Amino acid sequence: MELNLLELVKNRYSCRAYKLLAVEKAKLDYILECVRFAPSAVNNQPWRFHMVSCEEEKAKLWQCYNRDWFKTAPMYVIACMLHDEEWVRSDGKHHGDMDIAIAVEHLCLAATEQGLATCWVCNFDATLCKELFALPENEEPAVIIPLGYAADEMKAKSRKSMDDIVSRHV
Amino acid sequence: MELNLLELVKNRYSCRAYKLLAVEKAKLDYILECVRFAPSAVNNQPWRFHMVSCEEEKAKLWQCYNRDWFKTAPMYVIACMLHDEEWVRSDGKHHGDMDIAIAVEHLCLAATEQGLATCWVCNFDATLCKELFALPENEEPAVIIPLGYAADEMKAKSRKSMDDIVSRHV
Repeated sequence: MELNLLELVKNRYSCRAYKLLAVEKAKLDYILECVRFAPSAVNNQPWRFHMVSCEEEKAKLWQCYNRDWFKTAPMYVIACMLHDEEWVRSDGKHHGDMDIAIAVEHLCLAATEQGLATCWVCNFDATLCKELFALPENEEPAVIIPLGYAADEMKAKSRKSMDDIVSRHV
Repeated sequence: MELNLLELVKNRYSCRAYKLLAVEKAKLDYILECVRFAPSAVNNQPWRFHMVSCEEEKAKLWQCYNRDWFKTAPMYVIACMLHDEEWVRSDGKHHGDMDIAIAVEHLCLAATEQGLATCWVCNFDATLCKELFALPENEEPAVIIPLGYAADEMKAKSRKSMDDIVSRHV
């Protein structure tokens, strides 16, 4: 790609206004391939991704996250964790959240590379989403990602300083 | 960069043998900048990264994950989640695991881009790690990432098919 990873990371942002333009199939295929090759604990790949682009299904999603900007997206991906496939460490720590996050970030970075925009939406009603989409018992909708062409612009990113997040010695 | 994101994703692998070569500071700085700009829920950035490269500290890590291959790495990053800074959804779901996973995957992809190798190590004794490194109460060591030049080669990646992970309609 033309951007290095740092530029790509800096270009990704939480887009909160989308154009009335569909996402091309070739771009979506590329993005999903980046998702498919995401690593996961013990390579379990405890995930399933539901594409939502028809009006009836979109209206269901809007019930789970009712924001005007959210409704402008031409499509969405519901990223679900499969609880019966996630790796659990011997001390009981579950790793499904980490796995799904890796895959979703691949999605967002790949979309950015393709000139598309996304937003990590986690603050939705997951119980309602599971119910409205009749998701099976083992599936937890973890993240909803609107996907499309940006109709807004990135704001400057605010981040902690390097010294605040890194210690050179423990 | 010369690779597109999909190639980068496919080139990243779990490296289990490292050369006796130190990681250049410029490369480490670049990698950490990719980590620093990772997104997180509500931009809380609930993380701290400890660099481990001196022999005494490395020996502590080996106690937490005792594998011969693991000992070949010239350095390690302990990625810690800050429980007092992670975002918690209104239904009680914690998002620190997702956040730390995004940042760690940025680390692994950036290292790959720089010609370096990594491995996600989650199956370590986190309780012992916290104790040996005298981490504060709020810090949970979530992932240990060995970092260096590969002395092994990537095996073919095995992944679920696209049909197994994607549904076009819910």
